[in-house]
Amino acid sequence: MKTISENRAFGGVQGVYSHSSTACSCEMTFGLYLPEQTEVGPVPILWFLSGLTCTHENAMVKAGAQRWAAEMGIAVVFPDTSPRGEGVANDPAFDLGQGAGFYVNATQEPWAPHFRMWDYVTDELPRLLFNAFPVAEAAQSITGHSMGGHGALTIAMSFPGRFSSVSAFAPICNPAASAWGRPQFSAYLGPDEAGWAAHDATLLMRKRGFDGPMLVDQGTADQFLDKLCPEALAEAMAARRQGGAFRMQKGYDHSYFFVASFMEEHVAFHAGALHA
Amino acid sequence: MKTISENRAFGGVQGVYSHSSTACSCEMTFGLYLPEQTEVGPVPILWFLSGLTCTHENAMVKAGAQRWAAEMGIAVVFPDTSPRGEGVANDPAFDLGQGAGFYVNATQEPWAPHFRMWDYVTDELPRLLFNAFPVAEAAQSITGHSMGGHGALTIAMSFPGRFSSVSAFAPICNPAASAWGRPQFSAYLGPDEAGWAAHDATLLMRKRGFDGPMLVDQGTADQFLDKLCPEALAEAMAARRQGGAFRMQKGYDHSYFFVASFMEEHVAFHAGALHA
Repeated sequence: MKTISENRAFGGVQGVYSHSSTACSCEMTFGLYLPEQTEVGPVPILWFLSGLTCTHENAMVKAGAQRWAAEMGIAVVFPDTSPRGEGVANDPAFDLGQGAGFYVNATQEPWAPHFRMWDYVTDELPRLLFNAFPVAEAAQSITGHSMGGHGALTIAMSFPGRFSSVSAFAPICNPAASAWGRPQFSAYLGPDEAGWAAHDATLLMRKRGFDGPMLVDQGTADQFLDKLCPEALAEAMAARRQGGAFRMQKGYDHSYFFVASFMEEHVAFHAGALHA
Repeated sequence: MKTISENRAFGGVQGVYSHSSTACSCEMTFGLYLPEQTEVGPVPILWFLSGLTCTHENAMVKAGAQRWAAEMGIAVVFPDTSPRGEGVANDPAFDLGQGAGFYVNATQEPWAPHFRMWDYVTDELPRLLFNAFPVAEAAQSITGHSMGGHGALTIAMSFPGRFSSVSAFAPICNPAASAWGRPQFSAYLGPDEAGWAAHDATLLMRKRGFDGPMLVDQGTADQFLDKLCPEALAEAMAARRQGGAFRMQKGYDHSYFFVASFMEEHVAFHAGALHA
């Protein structure tokens, strides 16, 4: 593992590290914020999965999570959103290929050799973190924005018992029925839609739900509402009697200004579950 | 004036606007955060002047000021750091020309026709803001980072009575004696160093000081300490018995992680003066 940078922030350290990934067969970079409470011992960790076009860096510099993570004694990890590099397949579209991994293991060419973000985020990166940093495997929560909200919700529901809480900012709620989902799942997973269901938060909610508290925020002025399909997940949460809140936030759009505006509440929500 | 973007943020609006500048003879862009308290009436305003290489955008998305401005009912304006455009002189160096206006009125060629950031920030932009937005001319404070800290300190000391308080993050404290200052003042203002003194915070502190509270934060791990010369301003503040604090922050560097870490305290510091 290589240290790209370490900056003191809010009494802790905002680090950026890279490592050779087995899952993605390329060098992968991630951000990790460690609050000063790590000087005493391992702390809980919040996963923040980012959206289309983002690297590890966007949320790390724009979402304002560190202030609250520092106060509440929680680490935050910011993984990249896809494999990258010259030898890695790509597409001219911003919503396919590099920067758009959709948190799945691709089975189709040309994506299969590198696009294994599911394995990377649920297996390889956790093992690396718990071996190398003072973060507590027994105290994990997960959140994300847009495509990363999709990732957070689907991963949380797929590993019962692993995450104390889940939240999302403007998640892609129903990718199997959306222009943000159908083209990508076709490309990465192939035409058999049965295989898509494991990666659709609404379908997973209908089938099994999440075994902990859940919080979703969605701006009413979001320019991508037609692709995010919040109504599908809101209906599924209510129908399952899923404990949690689906909040429509008046006037907010899809930007990091929206994410930053509600970050304090999301970190506090997770802290409540993690420190319980 | 053109509206480039408006995003809801922390209950208020983060706007970006551009206008044809008379001072700089080009189109200029600025960011302006208005908290929701503007619905009731004009609010105090905090000027945030940015550093080398920055546009209006860097601090607006990375410094985390909006959260505290919203809570404390203060607007924040983020001017650009220089004139820009194809017809505007430039230099290959990152610390001269576009992105490096140093908040002076250039008198030398090729800079004189456009590089009039002193007039822009102290005269043209204030008039535009107080005419077009619900911000109170009688309640202004000023801060900035690096080159912008230099701008904030020199402007605050040059307009007694205008600013209720001044602060700075890692300011260029003594540009007339620094590699961040001497080459630029030579280029913009010419070889006569007598003309530089009006743009050097340490020299201004020795001569007149600031007629209000003052706060300076400087990281001890800043990679540019040799160019910032904090010891010169700290000595001058103490020698003048200037009311205020010069704080060395252990382990922090020159990045926006440093700025963001202390933004809450700076906004609270200004709010105390502005709402007094």
